[in-house]
Amino acid sequence: MPSTARTFPLRALISNTRSSRASTSSFTWDDVVRVSQPDHVPHDSSDLSGFFEKIEVCNRGSERQSEFIRFIIEDQIVGYIHNGFVDRLRTFKDVFVFPRSNSDGGRFQSYVTLHEILKTPEDRTRVVGEVIKCLGEEELIPGIRNELYPVVSSFGSPVYFSLERAAAPFFGIKAYGVHMNGFVEKDGEKFLWIGKRSEVKPTFPGMLDHLVAGGLPYGISCGENVMKECEEEAGIPQSISHKAVPIGAVSYADIEGYRYKRDVLFCYDLKLPDSFLPNNQDGEVESFKLIPVKNVANIIRRTHFFKPNCSLVIIDFLFRHGYISPECFGYLDLLQSLRSGDCS
Amino acid sequence: MPSTARTFPLRALISNTRSSRASTSSFTWDDVVRVSQPDHVPHDSSDLSGFFEKIEVCNRGSERQSEFIRFIIEDQIVGYIHNGFVDRLRTFKDVFVFPRSNSDGGRFQSYVTLHEILKTPEDRTRVVGEVIKCLGEEELIPGIRNELYPVVSSFGSPVYFSLERAAAPFFGIKAYGVHMNGFVEKDGEKFLWIGKRSEVKPTFPGMLDHLVAGGLPYGISCGENVMKECEEEAGIPQSISHKAVPIGAVSYADIEGYRYKRDVLFCYDLKLPDSFLPNNQDGEVESFKLIPVKNVANIIRRTHFFKPNCSLVIIDFLFRHGYISPECFGYLDLLQSLRSGDCS
Repeated sequence: MPSTARTFPLRALISNTRSSRASTSSFTWDDVVRVSQPDHVPHDSSDLSGFFEKIEVCNRGSERQSEFIRFIIEDQIVGYIHNGFVDRLRTFKDVFVFPRSNSDGGRFQSYVTLHEILKTPEDRTRVVGEVIKCLGEEELIPGIRNELYPVVSSFGSPVYFSLERAAAPFFGIKAYGVHMNGFVEKDGEKFLWIGKRSEVKPTFPGMLDHLVAGGLPYGISCGENVMKECEEEAGIPQSISHKAVPIGAVSYADIEGYRYKRDVLFCYDLKLPDSFLPNNQDGEVESFKLIPVKNVANIIRRTHFFKPNCSLVIIDFLFRHGYISPECFGYLDLLQSLRSGDCS
Repeated sequence: MPSTARTFPLRALISNTRSSRASTSSFTWDDVVRVSQPDHVPHDSSDLSGFFEKIEVCNRGSERQSEFIRFIIEDQIVGYIHNGFVDRLRTFKDVFVFPRSNSDGGRFQSYVTLHEILKTPEDRTRVVGEVIKCLGEEELIPGIRNELYPVVSSFGSPVYFSLERAAAPFFGIKAYGVHMNGFVEKDGEKFLWIGKRSEVKPTFPGMLDHLVAGGLPYGISCGENVMKECEEEAGIPQSISHKAVPIGAVSYADIEGYRYKRDVLFCYDLKLPDSFLPNNQDGEVESFKLIPVKNVANIIRRTHFFKPNCSLVIIDFLFRHGYISPECFGYLDLLQSLRSGDCS
């Protein structure tokens, strides 16, 4: 290995993490520890540009919003679908219809809605599911997970139907998730438990991750989901996980190809006992490491080692725990950018 | 006192706190303690409507934005001035000028700017100061405080000049402040130190307040200001106050008459020792009381006892410390409403 690669794993620093399919971001815990050291790069602790860059990675393509048309159900916008993908949906005439909009006199804009015969959530879920299966077989929607997400206009409002998780960004529906920062406090210093994703995971293999995170499927509350994921991902018993504290939410909107990812992540903090050691149960995490929060901030700021959306949740943690100060130029802009997507 | 008034101090519940000059909101600590009890009103702990109402109190008059015109300096919007107030400024021809805007072809909208002979911040501060003094004597701008606020387009960007604090809302400039939640943790339960403002304070007399809060004058950083206010308002020595943690910001935009208040509050948490007793130094606080956070939430939700902008900072505290759960209907809307104003 040439010496430049040893001092800084450049491949992972460049934009190969921009696609969830990228698998070239190979780095080791040794690399992580080295770049996290305060003196690895001098004098950057008040420079927020590395954080802003990570926000941008989660919010690409805003200039391409006009390529998407609204997906409306019962007069509510529930998503946005790319023109190119809409063309593919036109063949399913009994499922999707494309009325002209009245809002601009019906001149240009159209929108997508479901056929009026699909009146109940159950009917919609079943029939749209058949379309997704069909498009999945054509590999137009890759990575079918057989996990259903609720389709809503805002969190807690009526569920119009449920949609396969892998299809959510193709319909631009909002997807909700939970992310938990597991931390330990020793002698007044805070540490975060960081996971390294399995190299065989289909998405973001080998990258750094939260101790616990997961999508919010249909029919389970945020709090219940955190406890379930605590058990599966880190072996945290309910006697500890019930102390996880909901502390807010972050959001982002990311356009890539036909995909419009509109995610809202409910954030949790869990203070863990010093003696606790996480233990992955589902094979999705290779290993865990406890890292001082200050050093985690350096990893976020200096590398692309983290799965991109984890950066937002960790930057939110850095704000709430006082690791970013109002004296840093760009403080308020960075704070606001944590909810760049429709957070509703 | 009739029995209804004993069970609930109605006067303070109605909108008499909407004006900072109101002095009719008389209540005692006994009233505060009574309404704060969990069982004072049954089953409202997951109902966020009382919180939404307090957000609205800080964000009145948005439908009247069109009555204000932009105040522009060096091509940057720094404020908004009411048409009626603009008419009064027209008499100061050597200070204010009113060009037509080019953005809509110069048809309707104009804006206010400073005369081109006022090139330096010092000149602008001096000359605008003379206008303010004049308007103050006419009682068009009441409550002159002889305290200067920086005029900026966003926090940390160049200061175009400095403006008397009492005049800030008449020019619609953004005003920055610091608010600190001082809390204590005993046996796993958190308590907030709450102040009751002096009855002789010109603004919000007798109302509840944070342990420490203050505007951010020209030339002092947020962190320094928190320590200064800690000393003055609560007698907190620097050996403790340097541990105050910056945790984010809230904002609001409030239109009342000619005033357009655009405030951004930097929020701090300070965990205090159990044994600490606050001691006001500047005569602005009548007394302090340590109240369980859950009960403080009830005071916010059920009454208008708090100085309105304190509600935002305390609701932010409730979010960050897990007192509001994603399972409550309206969680994300309430979270977002904490930054209803331009938070930059």
